[in-house]
Parts: sequence; C-alpha cells; structure tokens
Amino acid sequence: MPTVIQYLLGRLKQLGIRDIFGVPGDFAFPINNAICDDNELRWIGCCNELNAAYAADGYARINRMSALSTTFGVGELSALCGIAGSYAENNLVFHIVGIPKMQIQKRHAIVHHSLGDGEYGTFMDMATPVVCASTMLTPENCVDEVERVIEAALENRQPVYIAIPHDYVNAEISSLTAPKSVFVKSDPATLEEVVSIITAKLSKAKQACIMPGFLVDRFGLKDLAMAVINASGLPYASMALDKAVLDETNPSYMGIYMGQLINPEIQEFVESCDCILAIGVVMSDINMGMFTAKLDKSRIINIMPFSVHIGNTDYINVKMLDVLEGLSRRLNKRTDVRGPVAKHPAVPEVNAEDTITADYLYAKYAEFFKPDDIVVVDSTSSFYGLLPFPLPKGVKFLSQMLWGAIGWATPAAFGTALAAPDRRVILMTGEGSHQMTVQEISQFYRYGLKPIIFVLNNQGYLIERMLSKKLDYCYNDIPEWQYHKLPEVLGRNNWITRKATTCGELDKIMRELDTAKVGAYIEIVTPELSAPPLMRAIHKNL
Amino acid sequence: MPTVIQYLLGRLKQLGIRDIFGVPGDFAFPINNAICDDNELRWIGCCNELNAAYAADGYARINRMSALSTTFGVGELSALCGIAGSYAENNLVFHIVGIPKMQIQKRHAIVHHSLGDGEYGTFMDMATPVVCASTMLTPENCVDEVERVIEAALENRQPVYIAIPHDYVNAEISSLTAPKSVFVKSDPATLEEVVSIITAKLSKAKQACIMPGFLVDRFGLKDLAMAVINASGLPYASMALDKAVLDETNPSYMGIYMGQLINPEIQEFVESCDCILAIGVVMSDINMGMFTAKLDKSRIINIMPFSVHIGNTDYINVKMLDVLEGLSRRLNKRTDVRGPVAKHPAVPEVNAEDTITADYLYAKYAEFFKPDDIVVVDSTSSFYGLLPFPLPKGVKFLSQMLWGAIGWATPAAFGTALAAPDRRVILMTGEGSHQMTVQEISQFYRYGLKPIIFVLNNQGYLIERMLSKKLDYCYNDIPEWQYHKLPEVLGRNNWITRKATTCGELDKIMRELDTAKVGAYIEIVTPELSAPPLMRAIHKNL
Repeated sequence: MPTVIQYLLGRLKQLGIRDIFGVPGDFAFPINNAICDDNELRWIGCCNELNAAYAADGYARINRMSALSTTFGVGELSALCGIAGSYAENNLVFHIVGIPKMQIQKRHAIVHHSLGDGEYGTFMDMATPVVCASTMLTPENCVDEVERVIEAALENRQPVYIAIPHDYVNAEISSLTAPKSVFVKSDPATLEEVVSIITAKLSKAKQACIMPGFLVDRFGLKDLAMAVINASGLPYASMALDKAVLDETNPSYMGIYMGQLINPEIQEFVESCDCILAIGVVMSDINMGMFTAKLDKSRIINIMPFSVHIGNTDYINVKMLDVLEGLSRRLNKRTDVRGPVAKHPAVPEVNAEDTITADYLYAKYAEFFKPDDIVVVDSTSSFYGLLPFPLPKGVKFLSQMLWGAIGWATPAAFGTALAAPDRRVILMTGEGSHQMTVQEISQFYRYGLKPIIFVLNNQGYLIERMLSKKLDYCYNDIPEWQYHKLPEVLGRNNWITRKATTCGELDKIMRELDTAKVGAYIEIVTPELSAPPLMRAIHKNL
Repeated sequence: MPTVIQYLLGRLKQLGIRDIFGVPGDFAFPINNAICDDNELRWIGCCNELNAAYAADGYARINRMSALSTTFGVGELSALCGIAGSYAENNLVFHIVGIPKMQIQKRHAIVHHSLGDGEYGTFMDMATPVVCASTMLTPENCVDEVERVIEAALENRQPVYIAIPHDYVNAEISSLTAPKSVFVKSDPATLEEVVSIITAKLSKAKQACIMPGFLVDRFGLKDLAMAVINASGLPYASMALDKAVLDETNPSYMGIYMGQLINPEIQEFVESCDCILAIGVVMSDINMGMFTAKLDKSRIINIMPFSVHIGNTDYINVKMLDVLEGLSRRLNKRTDVRGPVAKHPAVPEVNAEDTITADYLYAKYAEFFKPDDIVVVDSTSSFYGLLPFPLPKGVKFLSQMLWGAIGWATPAAFGTALAAPDRRVILMTGEGSHQMTVQEISQFYRYGLKPIIFVLNNQGYLIERMLSKKLDYCYNDIPEWQYHKLPEVLGRNNWITRKATTCGELDKIMRELDTAKVGAYIEIVTPELSAPPLMRAIHKNL
C-alpha cells in the first residue's frame, strides 16, 4: 500500500503538478522530505509564505493548477491572503499543510506555532471560508478525502486545504478503493430552456453584444466562448477585470467597456444594446466603472460557471460548458450588428531629455509587447495605464483586480515564468507594490528564468493618491529605495539593470530589451503625480 | 458629539498610544486620514501588513500596547499571522480595519478586496479565533463597543479587532454614555484558599524553587513576582520562553531550565524539588525541553493570569495579580534552600584568521550586551545560541518562541526601537528569517532610529537543518544575497555596514560598535552547519 503522502503526491502528479511552492517547517518536514525525494517533483522554496502563495497563484494561471506546502499555524496563516485571492479569482491551488502529530493533538499538548491552547482545528477552520473544500488526511480516509477535494477543486477551480498530521504522512493507507465520482451535470430541462431563451433574445435584439469575462479563462472555455461569439456574429467588448481574456486583435473586438470612465464610443454602444450576453463576468465595482456603468439588469444575460442569470431570473444547475456548447450550435448568425472600435492613445511627441510621463510610458509599453508574451501587472496605476491598449495575439494579461492585493504581481510573475519558461514574461509593477513582496526577485535567476521587470518609481502609492480627493496624505509616502540596484544585492546575475528618468533613456532601454537574451530589471522614474488618463478620470469621478 | 473615529482615537490616546502602524487602503482612507490629521498621532507606514503587525507586536512589548490599521480583506488577512502571534504571546494590539460602506454591505454589492460574493462578515469571522474581542463600530454602538473591546484587551493583554464601515468613520456618535466597567475580580474565598495552600506547600517543601514565566511581564507584574521571590527566599530558574523575564544578575537566579538539553546542574536541582512554583509559565514543547523535562505535575503549582493550577487541581476566578499580592505578604522566608548557578560557555580561544563558529559568535554577542539593551531575536538558532548566557541588568530580551514565526524579529525590532528611541536596540536574526520580512530595515533610518543589526549568514535555515535527522535537504537552501549591501540599496544612510567572515574581523567590528553613534548592519558568515551547543543537543535528541 502507498503511504498517505505517496498517494496524494501521486494523484497531484497525475493531474499535471510538477512544482510545489512553499516554505519548509518542522511540522511539515515529512511532506517537505517526500517532495524533495520525488524525482518527478521540484521543491520551489520561496522567501516567505505569502510570496509562495502568490507564486502558486501565478503558476496556476498558466498550468491550470498549482500546489503549495506550508507548516502549521505560522506558515498557513501567512499564506492566507494569497489563498483568499486564488479563491476569489478562481485559481486552483492545492494547499498542503503539515500539522502536529495526532498523538499530540489528542492529548492537547501545547506546541510551538500554536495559540498555546492545545487546540488543533482552529487554523483549518480559519481557512475554510477561502477554500472550496478542506480535509485532514488519515491513513483510513486518505483515498476518499483526496478524491473528494480533488473533485471539488477541479469543479470549482478554487483552492483546497489539505492538512496532514506529522505522524500520518508516511503511514500506509488502509484502502485503495476510490469513491464514485459525482461531478455535477447540468439539469437537461433547465439547460434547454436557458439556451432557447438566450438564442431567441439575441436573435430579436435590435442591438446586442457579448462580454466575455475572466471566468471563461479559469474554466478553460476560451475556445468555446470564441465559438459562441463567431456563431452569433456579434461584436464583443471586455470589462476591466476581463482584459484580453479573448483575442484583442479580432475584428469583432471593440475594446474596453468601463462605464463612463473610458472609451465613450464603446460606452454609448454597449449601453444602448437591448441585450448584452456576459459570459463569466463578475459585476464588481471596478468592472462597473466604479459604478458609473448604466446597465439595466433586465438587458443583461450572465452565464456563470454553475448558473445563468437572465434579467432578474436566476437559473441554477446549469453549467457554463453545457450552455456555451448549446449556444455554439444553436445561435443564429447576425450580420447586421457592427460595433465601434475603441481609439487608443498614441505615443506623445517628446524630446529625449523630457521626464517620462505616464502617457508616454504606457504608450511605449504597448509598443513593446509581442505575440504570446505573458504580462503580469499589479492592481495599481500600471493596470489602468495598460488597460486601453489592445494587446498582440496570444498575449496573456495577468492581473488580480477583484482581490486586488498589491504586491501580488512580483511573486506571481515568478510562478508564471516557472510554469512557462519558454515564453517572455514581463512584470509591470509600481514600487509601492513591489516593496511588499520584493524578496522574490531573487528567485528568477535561481531557477534560470529571464523575466523583464519594470518597476515604476513615482515616490509612493500613486493609485492611492488618485483615489483620494486630497493628493498628499503622508500615508502614501514610502521609503526611498535604489530599485535598480536590487538585483545585484539579492543575487549575482548577468541581468540588464537600468534606471530611466528621461524619455530618451527609456527609448534606448526599450530598444536594448527588444532583443535581450537575459533577464532585465528596469527602474522607471516619473513625477509623483503623473497618472494615466483612466486614473485621472477615476480621480475626477470621486 | 465626536465622530466614531474621533471617539476611538481619543480613547487610544488616553491609553498611551501615540503611533499607529499600518498600510493604507481605500476602504480605510477615512481612518488613515484621521490618523494623519491628528497632531498627537503618528502614522507609521510599513512595507506590508504582516511586517506592520510584527512591528506593532514589538512596539506593544515595550509600550504595553500598540495599534495597527489595515484595509478590508487583502490588508487584514495579510496581517493575520502577526495578530495570531500577538494573541498567542499576549501582546495587546488594537487592530483597526477599514471596511466598505454599510450601504454597500446591505445591498451585497461586489467590491474589490472581497471574495466576490457580496458577503462582508467573512474576514471578521476569520479573525475571531485570534483576538480576545471583535466588533464592527456604528454611530449607535460606538461608545459601548469601544469600551467593551478596550476592557477585554486590557484584561487579557491580547489583540482586539475593530472594523469601521467607510461611511461610519466620520459619522457623529449618537450617545456618549459609557457602559459600567465590569473588570473581573478574584473570588475572595478561592483566593484565600489558593494563597494558603501555596504558602503551606512552599514552607513544607524539602526543596523548592520558583519559575517566573513570560506572562508575568505581559501582565505588568514583574515587580510583584520579584517581591514574591524575595519573600520566599527561594532560588529561581527560567524556562526558555521566559528568558530574562526577571533579572539574570540576581544572586537567587540559577539559570535556564530546559529538561535534559542544557545545564545539567539546574536540571538536577529543579527535577529533585518537591515543589515548583511557576508564575505565568506556558508548559509548551520548547519550555519542556522538547518534552525531555521530567516534571511530575503533582509537584507543580502554576499561577496563570486568571487561574491557578496546583497539582491536578484547577482553581478558576483568581487573578495572578491578587495571588501574587497575597503571597508577597504571607510567604515565610526560607533561608535553607540554595540552588546551583548555571555555568555558561566561555569565549573559545581562536586565531584572528579563523572562520567564525557558533560557539565563538554567541560568546562574543554575550560580551557585547550592556545594561538596559533591548535584544530582539528570531525563533532560530540565534535564540538557542544566546539562551545560556545571563544578560546584564535591565536587558529586555524579546523573542517569539511560542508562536515562532520566523521573520518576526526584523519588523518587531523596528517597532521596539520606535517605542524606545533612547535605548540601544540590537536585532539578531538568521538570514533565512531576515529574508521573510527584510523590507522593514528601510524603516529604521526613515524614523531616525539607530539599531544594531546582526544578520547571521550560514547559507540556509540552520534551525531546520538541525531539527532534521538528515542535514542536507534541499528545502533548507535559500537564495544567496549580499546582505551587508542591503542598507545602502533600501535607503541612503550613514550606518556602519560590514561583513565578517573571520574571528579577527568580528572582534574589530564589535569594538567599533561598542562606541558607535549611528546604526549598524553587520553580516556574519559562519560555516553552514556551525550550530550552538543547545541546537546540537536538540539535534542529538531527535
């Protein structure tokens, strides 16, 4: 019989896991050992657990799933904000936690990393709201429970929590009999009703459009969503959180819709549609243009992973996959609806010695991208700066705008690069975000990865300045660092490290990077309040 | 009428809070603004929330309490491991969380930093197990609830969680009528019984000793505990978590008791006592010498903050304060019990060009300390290295060995230095721990503080290597940094920055630091497996 850890790791390998992120700890040693001793797995040690969780989140966005290992109490709680982000944004992370021996738990002995109260279920309870399933493995329940949480994870594309007591990790399991799979199926009658109603509504609409959301990507349904769009003949737009979920070079793509904050031509078109088919869109404050969107609920259809919402009617027990399959077969192709195409800002004319403005910077960034790049952006002004620019074909644009934990992008870019070592990974972060999780830049070259890292130094939290009526609150100031010197100090490497303060310097660096064969770390200095147009619009709208 | 935030901040100021640690965020802006706008308060922005929580924990250990401000979801969850540590180790932190407007909560709108489910109580629920009280303030409940959580915090010396909806922060409170205080008092009959039994037991014992624990410090009862010791005439020892809670230069002080792992003369004396009076001792794995301690429960009395345990009998409704007061008046002074005094290692004889060993390093550290220093040590080999050496009078020795989150010490030292700007603060950390929270070294000089920072570079997690039977597991390797160059890159300063690899270099640096008037950051390189004697004993005991 295999041991508990052998069974678990074996199943994770079958699912396609090859790397496990984490920080070791004594209660997790048998787990850590098993990972290191397994020739098919790689231990990816991070500098702290939150960074490890963010890296695992980034990895899951490319590899469809990832794994994280932490220790009892101190480790798992440090990772919790990262796990919550993966839960909110539907990234599947298997979180494996090493906990004290069952014999210690049963006699309520007091150990380190505990609250000193002899209780051992507290941290699992704390994690429960931010995972779709949780379990504590024993030799007796191992197969049943591993299969149950894997099924929940695959179904919901969300993290699961798996605790293993120290003395059970290497214990032989008592049975290999797996439970019967119970993946939920769509209810046929509801499915038929929903597909019929949507088909009819899109046919009858005077003007209609489609709005693909990020959940389409998370549930692996991008091709099917594109097939639905093609079958419909309708134009499509994206909301902010959903940028580039589908191809932004497609002639049917209009641009970003974000209420009245950006692209007035798209706003006018979308808001005058009598039917909008959203697919996996989270109607959050940012997606609703900070609630400036004027979208009457009666005109919206939203196909979610396990439900469909048509106007004020909610249909449950129908899965996105089945609804999209039905629609792709049944929709009538419209040829009469043409949407506008958003204009995006051009590169402003500048002199070489000019300071770099946000307007110049983001236009230059946009020029820099190549097909199939992976672009990782923090939930900061960089995100709003890039939003208006359509991306080349195949570019994966990774942001975390629902959970919005600044600092996520640096470790997430590391995880992403590890999952896609052959693609160009570009990290764009503000320096305030970067400070939060900066340690992890030392990991890229440890694993032979060659990212291009742009750190925007505008002397504080620009996004927060712009979200306040008063721009100069002291809490938006941060310590001054010499960012471009960090790669040298956090490791020895052959990276291109530069600091740009003028447009001419930036141009030169961009040309150099265009053909770079090594990693790069570029500090870009702009004036403190130089914000992209969309952030200015948000500030004005406060 | 004052507003909600005015009332809260006013009360915190009355209690002695002058600094509030945190990271700003849009849901917390009205709170952040109020703090910045208050001339009597200082906003202490940290690089991330976990670091801020650790800094607040360090501050509370000096100032008896501290305050932390974070934003909804991303901020508060990032701080949770730090709050849990403060809870486990009884440090009072007021955690103030800015949450979305009540009007948004009531209509279950979906906002950023949420799980996307329109629920707003989840994160408060997640925090509940690691705070002694929690509340969401409204204009109606403000006075009642603020007074309730303050009372709980002062009583339990543990964190409390205070959420304020964005739209309530600046709302006027509806009543200033404060509730009647209900601080718990000891039950007089139980108190009398407990004091009598302890007095009799200590008088009759053939051999007895006292063991003051860290809770004595947390509940502000060090003088009273010393008075009890003096009244008893008995010798005292400390367990590991309780190092230096009372004066280690007192003739009645024997040394550290840690089962069979250290100080055999102390072990023999303590384990042959027929009565041991513990005062506020947590009987954890580390305190019990990794369970090598042979202390029969029938011979132990433990006076805890709200209970007393005599052998197998538990007495509740008695407070440590009252029991110690009673004992200090009633105990009969023994003159017949003399304990041994622990021998501690001498500085080994070395040549100037020798590599630095752990044995040499910790003996040199011990020589370096001066009266009234504050020494902050991570839960790593540094802690075990320093443990055997008695400290000069008035030295405050800060560690976090129950919760044991490595990385705590760097931000905690910052918080400590801020709370005691006129004392010498010495941080001793391993480089693995330091990597976790390294950002915060940039804060010291931002606030004009002059710590002495020793970073031990032994190429990985030494404590974890020593806690494994096999010493070379890959997960204990970490990225290589050039630590001594960090202060320059993370800020501009006039600090002494050095790297020592030989005993001669270390000696020279120690002499230089002895009279230093500026901050210092010293990287000390030792061989990978050079561990102090106590860690070697722990390894042997595995």
